[in-house]
Amino acid sequence: MALLVQKYGGTSMGSVERIEHVAGKVALARERGHQIVVVVSAMSGETDRLIKLAKSMQARPNPRELDQMIATGEQISTALLAMALDKRGIQARSYLGSQVAIRTDQAYNKARIRSIDSERLLADCAAGIVPVVAGFQGVDDDGNITTLGRGGSDTTGVALAAALKADECQIYTDVDGVYTTDPRVEPRARRLDRITFEEMLELASLGSKVLQIRSVEFAGKYKVPLRVLSTFTDGPGTLITLEDNISMEEPLISGIAFARDEAQLTVAGVPDRPGIAAAILGPIGDANVEVDMIVQNVGADGTTDFTFTVNRSEHERAVEIANKVAQELKAKGVRSALDIVKVSLVGVGMRSHAGIAAKMFKTLAAEGINIKMISTSEIKISVVIEDKYLELAVRALHNAFELSESKGG
Amino acid sequence: MALLVQKYGGTSMGSVERIEHVAGKVALARERGHQIVVVVSAMSGETDRLIKLAKSMQARPNPRELDQMIATGEQISTALLAMALDKRGIQARSYLGSQVAIRTDQAYNKARIRSIDSERLLADCAAGIVPVVAGFQGVDDDGNITTLGRGGSDTTGVALAAALKADECQIYTDVDGVYTTDPRVEPRARRLDRITFEEMLELASLGSKVLQIRSVEFAGKYKVPLRVLSTFTDGPGTLITLEDNISMEEPLISGIAFARDEAQLTVAGVPDRPGIAAAILGPIGDANVEVDMIVQNVGADGTTDFTFTVNRSEHERAVEIANKVAQELKAKGVRSALDIVKVSLVGVGMRSHAGIAAKMFKTLAAEGINIKMISTSEIKISVVIEDKYLELAVRALHNAFELSESKGG
Repeated sequence: MALLVQKYGGTSMGSVERIEHVAGKVALARERGHQIVVVVSAMSGETDRLIKLAKSMQARPNPRELDQMIATGEQISTALLAMALDKRGIQARSYLGSQVAIRTDQAYNKARIRSIDSERLLADCAAGIVPVVAGFQGVDDDGNITTLGRGGSDTTGVALAAALKADECQIYTDVDGVYTTDPRVEPRARRLDRITFEEMLELASLGSKVLQIRSVEFAGKYKVPLRVLSTFTDGPGTLITLEDNISMEEPLISGIAFARDEAQLTVAGVPDRPGIAAAILGPIGDANVEVDMIVQNVGADGTTDFTFTVNRSEHERAVEIANKVAQELKAKGVRSALDIVKVSLVGVGMRSHAGIAAKMFKTLAAEGINIKMISTSEIKISVVIEDKYLELAVRALHNAFELSESKGG
Repeated sequence: MALLVQKYGGTSMGSVERIEHVAGKVALARERGHQIVVVVSAMSGETDRLIKLAKSMQARPNPRELDQMIATGEQISTALLAMALDKRGIQARSYLGSQVAIRTDQAYNKARIRSIDSERLLADCAAGIVPVVAGFQGVDDDGNITTLGRGGSDTTGVALAAALKADECQIYTDVDGVYTTDPRVEPRARRLDRITFEEMLELASLGSKVLQIRSVEFAGKYKVPLRVLSTFTDGPGTLITLEDNISMEEPLISGIAFARDEAQLTVAGVPDRPGIAAAILGPIGDANVEVDMIVQNVGADGTTDFTFTVNRSEHERAVEIANKVAQELKAKGVRSALDIVKVSLVGVGMRSHAGIAAKMFKTLAAEGINIKMISTSEIKISVVIEDKYLELAVRALHNAFELSESKGG
């Protein structure tokens, strides 16, 4: 018998019928002898509806009041799931963040969990009751409702699993696990049985929408075994786990991620002296534009080209600021490109294996793909290439690193 | 400077625009130097929508979960009003029942308020903040959300006014006060400036939908001055007050109420002996059929006719039960009538004045209206008549007791 926290997302809770299906999954897990604590998101579309309603009242809604309002989405879905379980003869009880003391700081709209009172939930489990906890929401020390930001229900699930010392936190979603890459780009993409927290973090930060990045951090920090699996199909999903558990035979590379929504800026011919990076990125950061990759090339004539990428939606604003900075620095000018994508190889295996980067670059060269920018971390190599080569690059790398169904696993 | 509790109903909170209008009314009261605590209902239609959603999940929704769910309606409208006030530069703060400790018993769906923590609200008022409190909801000793039943927001308003020792509890609705009778039946109906709690109770129990009956009881018990007034037009409304405050010149009769949804049953020729009433009404009550008027006539032959009225929707069930009882009692049979209405005169003045009943019966007789049943209380006389005479009876009585605009107050 294991204690499992099961988290169901908005799509899984999208209608009365789907919630009944979720109740069926909970019932099945109980029949297998497990104790279940459920965490749910709002029904799909509900949070957006509430935000829209709030904005029709106040263009920039008061943050406290916005949280008071959007927390109702999860409140409704917890009650509906508790009814669905009740209907099946399973004792269940819905809980709001405040009712199980999910204490957070007071940062409305993006609060962080500080503590959870596990006593009540454990007592329910012991009594055969299924607690259904509202994701995404908490309560501050003054009793104000807070929310955890987009995708915060994943974090609630992991935090509960940590507090309850659960055997596993299962994140049910509309995909059946984490894939070596996006199957829409490479049909031979393979579901991974396991992946490390660090790899998952890199994949999440690279645009894989499977899990909210904070929940992965949280799970890693508290060593909560995390499993991603589908509400709609049966299967083992992908287990996200500590590196120690990965067997030696695991492939070097876990997956290939990509991001289409980047833009590249180059401040050309800036004086090559200390403090240049700060002089350029300071004003960009002050304007709340997030910078992703940063590369600085040493030039021959005492000047250098400073290149970075930003989210495409912030491209115009970034160019504006960069132009101003370029003038002040007496740089040669600012170039920018929108027709770019970032492709990344991720894998803890590359730590202990040389030659991964070389193999990646060789593979791309063989396809005639020019690399415009390179950035590496311990377990990741990212390149920026022209966007028209995206699919070709992903498929070539997927093949070169033997990630496909037929060869891998 | 007065401390006022203002309660706005679902129609008043029916849209973003209407909520902005409510914010305007709150702003105006503040400009006049008053401290305001607001209580709001859910946006009109929202509670019904939620109940329907719950019933689509579970035919008879789990009562705890139903409350957890339908309490969200008020939660949303408090936040929206707080935003609307914020937008006008007025500091405001929404509160759920749990956040201001509106403690109730654990009777889900029909809970009763036990206590309210006024400290936080008074501190807000002192700091110039407008608290916006969710009506209809409370919290039990275990932190479960409870709701007070239909129209419970009125009760929240009155309970808050009592706890805060407010100068007045103002119930804003879509009518501009309490009328001598329904203006759709008698266009010369007049708005009453004042009415006593007892009269209001009788009117409410007789079908006047202006105020929830429990809120009137509550206000009477705690001596909270209660005022009914319109959100949509300006005007003083109707003050519901202790009898002591009514001046000697007040008319004898405050109003004429009527109920169209009654049905009359007669168990004819039952033995005239002790325990008959219980023998007949016991099974009716056991079947949860509510009985309104009861009359028993003494017969000459040692038998009696026993007549009572029930809600028209329960007529069939009542007849069924009455037939069974009649057989057991060896009564002559059961007669029933659906084409009846009840018309009632209400007024504390009738306590100290003889002849009101006689004048009522005389007035009806003059119009050729036959009285089928009579029932009286200290401040009310009700008669049952044929339904086709309803309008005629109301207008004749309204005129006879000089309730019209031109002659009265």
